Amino acid sequence: MIGSDIEGVGTPGVGFHSPFPMQDGFAFSVVAGEPHGPRLGQLTTPHGVIETPAFMPVGTQGTVKGLTPHQLGDVGSQIVLANAYHLAVRPGEETVDALGGLHSFMGWDRPILTDSGGFQVFSLAELRDLDDDGVSFRSHVDGALVRLTPERVLEIEAALNPDIAMVLDHCAPGSVSEAEARDALERTMAWAERSTRHRDQISTRTPMAVFGIVQGGVHESLRREAAERLRELPFDGYAVGGVSVGEERQTMLRSIPWGTDGLPVDRPRYLMGVGGFEEFRVAVEHGIDMFDCVIPTRNARGAYLFRLNDGPLRIRNSAHKLDPGPIEEGCDCLACLEFSRGFIHHLYLRKEMLGCTLGTIHNLRVFHRYLEKARAAILAGTWAEFRSGTASLEEQYRPVAAGSN
Amino acid sequence: MIGSDIEGVGTPGVGFHSPFPMQDGFAFSVVAGEPHGPRLGQLTTPHGVIETPAFMPVGTQGTVKGLTPHQLGDVGSQIVLANAYHLAVRPGEETVDALGGLHSFMGWDRPILTDSGGFQVFSLAELRDLDDDGVSFRSHVDGALVRLTPERVLEIEAALNPDIAMVLDHCAPGSVSEAEARDALERTMAWAERSTRHRDQISTRTPMAVFGIVQGGVHESLRREAAERLRELPFDGYAVGGVSVGEERQTMLRSIPWGTDGLPVDRPRYLMGVGGFEEFRVAVEHGIDMFDCVIPTRNARGAYLFRLNDGPLRIRNSAHKLDPGPIEEGCDCLACLEFSRGFIHHLYLRKEMLGCTLGTIHNLRVFHRYLEKARAAILAGTWAEFRSGTASLEEQYRPVAAGSN
Repeated sequence: MIGSDIEGVGTPGVGFHSPFPMQDGFAFSVVAGEPHGPRLGQLTTPHGVIETPAFMPVGTQGTVKGLTPHQLGDVGSQIVLANAYHLAVRPGEETVDALGGLHSFMGWDRPILTDSGGFQVFSLAELRDLDDDGVSFRSHVDGALVRLTPERVLEIEAALNPDIAMVLDHCAPGSVSEAEARDALERTMAWAERSTRHRDQISTRTPMAVFGIVQGGVHESLRREAAERLRELPFDGYAVGGVSVGEERQTMLRSIPWGTDGLPVDRPRYLMGVGGFEEFRVAVEHGIDMFDCVIPTRNARGAYLFRLNDGPLRIRNSAHKLDPGPIEEGCDCLACLEFSRGFIHHLYLRKEMLGCTLGTIHNLRVFHRYLEKARAAILAGTWAEFRSGTASLEEQYRPVAAGSN
Repeated sequence: MIGSDIEGVGTPGVGFHSPFPMQDGFAFSVVAGEPHGPRLGQLTTPHGVIETPAFMPVGTQGTVKGLTPHQLGDVGSQIVLANAYHLAVRPGEETVDALGGLHSFMGWDRPILTDSGGFQVFSLAELRDLDDDGVSFRSHVDGALVRLTPERVLEIEAALNPDIAMVLDHCAPGSVSEAEARDALERTMAWAERSTRHRDQISTRTPMAVFGIVQGGVHESLRREAAERLRELPFDGYAVGGVSVGEERQTMLRSIPWGTDGLPVDRPRYLMGVGGFEEFRVAVEHGIDMFDCVIPTRNARGAYLFRLNDGPLRIRNSAHKLDPGPIEEGCDCLACLEFSRGFIHHLYLRKEMLGCTLGTIHNLRVFHRYLEKARAAILAGTWAEFRSGTASLEEQYRPVAAGSN
């Protein structure tokens, strides 16, 4: 059990505990595993407890595409991610606030995390004008001028009122020079500090945790420095950001511990925008607790289906036309329990909405099943067996590029 | 109760009972109401009992667009309509057969009716070549030459194996001359007779009822003659077809009894392709038991929502942006119980699939709620009150054109 391992360990970077209390209504405990390795956690929020490691489906605009909240819960989702930037642009955070906040708006009463929109500012926006105070840009929707500062983002998020709010960060592409990565890191740190000050000025209907974000690009020293500096700020959790933004896949995987080694062991850690079997395994081995990624949902809409017992299945392939079997034998999702490959193939070819809905249900269930197995292995102390048992799975899915938000 | 009214009444056109037994596995009884007026029926099929008058959602390609079979059952659908023509073209009836038949294919274990495709032959197909034996045409999909005869249609339907199969008919536009309508009627009658002979040649996994179709255009004498001749053929039920195909709305409503007066009172009667509050009321008053129509589903996808307590609601209208209320106060559908107008408005504007799903759930529930109330009124003997209570509803929705398949 983790408790005995980390008891009394106070050396930063090994078993460092955060000196700051968590936001009222939140708690995090590691119930099994290792402080910087595979660990089974429980993250308590005002809308329920999340068993970690956990995958968060992406519901950018307040809906995971094609699924009702009931269907989302039925596949095993414990928490969903929405995007503060997108919701601020449309329908506007004041609209969500007027409709009772994001949980009420979406019809989802379990935990929600909102991404700040930092990633979108640097990926979607044109005519970006960045300064130390914040960033101005033309909206990706209508070209309207939008100004985001760390304070403004927290105010948007307070109006949305998720359980967990991400701060505004400067997310630089993986290809930038060390000097540019240093620049993004310094700005991210300054914004993080302003965020921790500003969060005391805002009020929310229900308590809202705030997570800081490690940047530093592909540079080990920068990421290690970012984590060491970030943990001095009173955040409720910490994210590793600026990954899977154009750098080599192996570089991304290698960089994870640079960001996590220095983080407090008693706070949840979230690897932003990353999903996939190898990614999950490597990240969990560095103590990551939370993930989000569009890979399962976007690939489902592209008729590319995941399986834990075999390689990917391209359901539009004519080989499936007459197949009475499920997408994946042994899968307990609605799509596998009640429909044949042949029918789902037909739905995709006919561009029937139900095809995407069933594909999304299945792909999300696969991602959740993977992490359920991972959690069970951590609890049972059988991580090594889990790791060797999933090696061929990683191999079969290695060609799938990590997606971005 | 109807039983006492029709007991011993054998005059054709008044209380005429069919001299033919129903297909094994099927039964129909009128449990309240009048033989040619509002009547509460129970249609027993191999996949369950349908309380009539009943509305059948349209699932042309084996799916009601955007809904899982569970969601379809949850809104109160007792039976769903699929289209033999579309399914024969894609994925092919042999594919559906190989996948266990239509119930297994669709994942819907309640009753299914298949339309023959007669309507589509005359509405979608180009280069149609009609003769007394059947019809040849270019597929609306790929231009391939397709040949449909009454026998071939029943064979397609036997492979699909719905509970109820419609025969091939010649569905002429509402605008044709009396001579052309007579021609279509004669061909429909000849095909009906061939269908009753051929049905004995086909075998199905589970018993399949076959319904004949009254044609005759907007001509009273032709429709009355069609019904009188059709009831001499051993069908399990009878449909009024060739309505809502371009004729005036009031003409269509007026023509219903021309087709129904002569039909056996102890067999279910289906008004094809018609839906709407006034249409339901007028048709039920002429002893119609079953309906299908794309109006609720197609309008839902067009953001046009029905309500039983008010006029239509155009959910894209900006008036709904901040509205925390449900689409319709008092509606018991998932969309109304768990989501605000403001959220559904947002989903439609963002073209999120969940918008169409929730709109479809709501519109179907409204149609089913209307007929649930109608059935309750028939049982209670309060049809006159029901009729006067829904007069303003009919007025509010009169501008909505009846849709076709």
